[in-house]
Amino acid sequence: MRKLEDLQLLIAKSVSELKYPVYPAELYEPISYILALGGKRMRPALLLMACDLFGGDVESALPPALAIEVFHNFTLMHDDIMDNAPIRRGKITVHEKWNQNVAILSGDVMLIEGYKLMMQVRNEILRQVLDVFNNTAVGVCEGQQLDMTFETSDNISIAEYINMIRLKTAVVLGGALKIGALIGNADQQDADLLCEFGEQLGIAFQLQDDILDVYGNPEKFGKQVGGDIISNKKTYLLIKALELVKNEQVIDLNKWLSTTTFNHSEKVTAVTQIYNQLDIRRFAEEEMQAYAEKAFEALEKINLPEDSKQYLRDFADGLLVREY
Amino acid sequence: MRKLEDLQLLIAKSVSELKYPVYPAELYEPISYILALGGKRMRPALLLMACDLFGGDVESALPPALAIEVFHNFTLMHDDIMDNAPIRRGKITVHEKWNQNVAILSGDVMLIEGYKLMMQVRNEILRQVLDVFNNTAVGVCEGQQLDMTFETSDNISIAEYINMIRLKTAVVLGGALKIGALIGNADQQDADLLCEFGEQLGIAFQLQDDILDVYGNPEKFGKQVGGDIISNKKTYLLIKALELVKNEQVIDLNKWLSTTTFNHSEKVTAVTQIYNQLDIRRFAEEEMQAYAEKAFEALEKINLPEDSKQYLRDFADGLLVREY
Repeated sequence: MRKLEDLQLLIAKSVSELKYPVYPAELYEPISYILALGGKRMRPALLLMACDLFGGDVESALPPALAIEVFHNFTLMHDDIMDNAPIRRGKITVHEKWNQNVAILSGDVMLIEGYKLMMQVRNEILRQVLDVFNNTAVGVCEGQQLDMTFETSDNISIAEYINMIRLKTAVVLGGALKIGALIGNADQQDADLLCEFGEQLGIAFQLQDDILDVYGNPEKFGKQVGGDIISNKKTYLLIKALELVKNEQVIDLNKWLSTTTFNHSEKVTAVTQIYNQLDIRRFAEEEMQAYAEKAFEALEKINLPEDSKQYLRDFADGLLVREY
Repeated sequence: MRKLEDLQLLIAKSVSELKYPVYPAELYEPISYILALGGKRMRPALLLMACDLFGGDVESALPPALAIEVFHNFTLMHDDIMDNAPIRRGKITVHEKWNQNVAILSGDVMLIEGYKLMMQVRNEILRQVLDVFNNTAVGVCEGQQLDMTFETSDNISIAEYINMIRLKTAVVLGGALKIGALIGNADQQDADLLCEFGEQLGIAFQLQDDILDVYGNPEKFGKQVGGDIISNKKTYLLIKALELVKNEQVIDLNKWLSTTTFNHSEKVTAVTQIYNQLDIRRFAEEEMQAYAEKAFEALEKINLPEDSKQYLRDFADGLLVREY
């Protein structure tokens, strides 16, 4: 089995070799630009990993893996417009560097280019691979829409939130693994189980991200601790706190949620204190653990040799124990 | 052979029966909204017509025909954002009725839904149909980008302009006809010839549209005559005029192009007069005729019975002789 890091490097190299037409420049330059911004290339690497685990030819899985990466960057390009984000991975976003219309249209072309790459599989699995890709792509759009809707909604339930992160983040991981498995000649049931593994693991991973934002080690986390609190982001922690909060804590929490002028670290400290009083971290970790367990349950049912399963277990452990 | 009007009605009925999920509402309601705005349903009807001409089952071609219509409306939804258009077919545009983010994301989903519909063809032609669809879709995006780039460019050549309208308007007609032909079991050469017929006819049609904007009968044309002149739109007529204009006419034309406060009908009359002096209408009609002839040349080479060819000739004649 190839190491995940090696697969990530293989993807990085292949991404850098992707060539697009030079004309019209405003349509194709932004594609090369956003793809060159880097990132961990985790999604396409997972596709290759799944193919490799089932004994498939990793090289033949490269175009569909690149499809996943191009698709992912299409969503980033359009999300950045919608979120009004000026910076992506330390560089100016496409809609800021060029303009919004360029970012809309280049993104559209990236989605189509994603299909062109995804079609580079053998005929017997073409329809099935594209079905998975279609469902994944629609899921990500639904997740993004729910994320935006939730920003201005009150009373989001934990179930709605989990469904949103499942769609926005987790289905792509499941989809990438499933497509890789199909290319590697996995049977239908194993491909579905690996998809399930990826999806549940993705939910656990996102919940961990919510926890780390408040309780992570700032040096290891790589993001500003408390960023979600400062921006009132509706994470698992905030939704759970709003569900459990009582009496004078309600007034206190709502005060911090509604004030527009505040000292950042003061707000982070105060809201974290409310979370602590409500034992939010424990709830969140239990929820995360529950999804991790679902992932491992699916994994155990896959018909793969023990060393391959251990590889997947190690991968999941590595993903879920980080940067505290 | 079924009448084109009947095929358009069949499409209109099928479009009205398309069902999308109810959740998230902001993602799917705009899709039903824009599809219900109507339109001539010409592109999908052409797909059905091509299938019918080659003896294929029109019913089986309905999903791919709907794919073309959904795709076309995706481009309209995103184009309306880019053009900042408040009204489409007499109704508020999606980005105005909801908001811009909704229009971006609903459009993205429509493109994916287009692929889902387009995939509903038999396995033997799946790859080829999707190849045509991919190339068509990329072409339309390239055309839209060129159209936007040309708005702020000087010195657009006639060749660049024709290439832009070919991509933006004509390739979809060719693509729809080719996909219909493939579904109808046409052989490769006939499918390519029908595609060529559609593309050349599409260019001729667009050139006619440029002519009608200035020289059309306002009662029959259905749009404000002179609209392109008022907005300085770089049509064939204006590009050709800028190429031919000399001496004091240069100053006169540039004055009308640069002035921001003017009486609409005065500008239309003045610019039309310059066009008349330069014999622009004749140049435009000759160019249009040249593309119509290319379309007819491709048509004659198609291996179809005489009555089918006559059907296509009548269709082309009907398209190109209108509303003067």
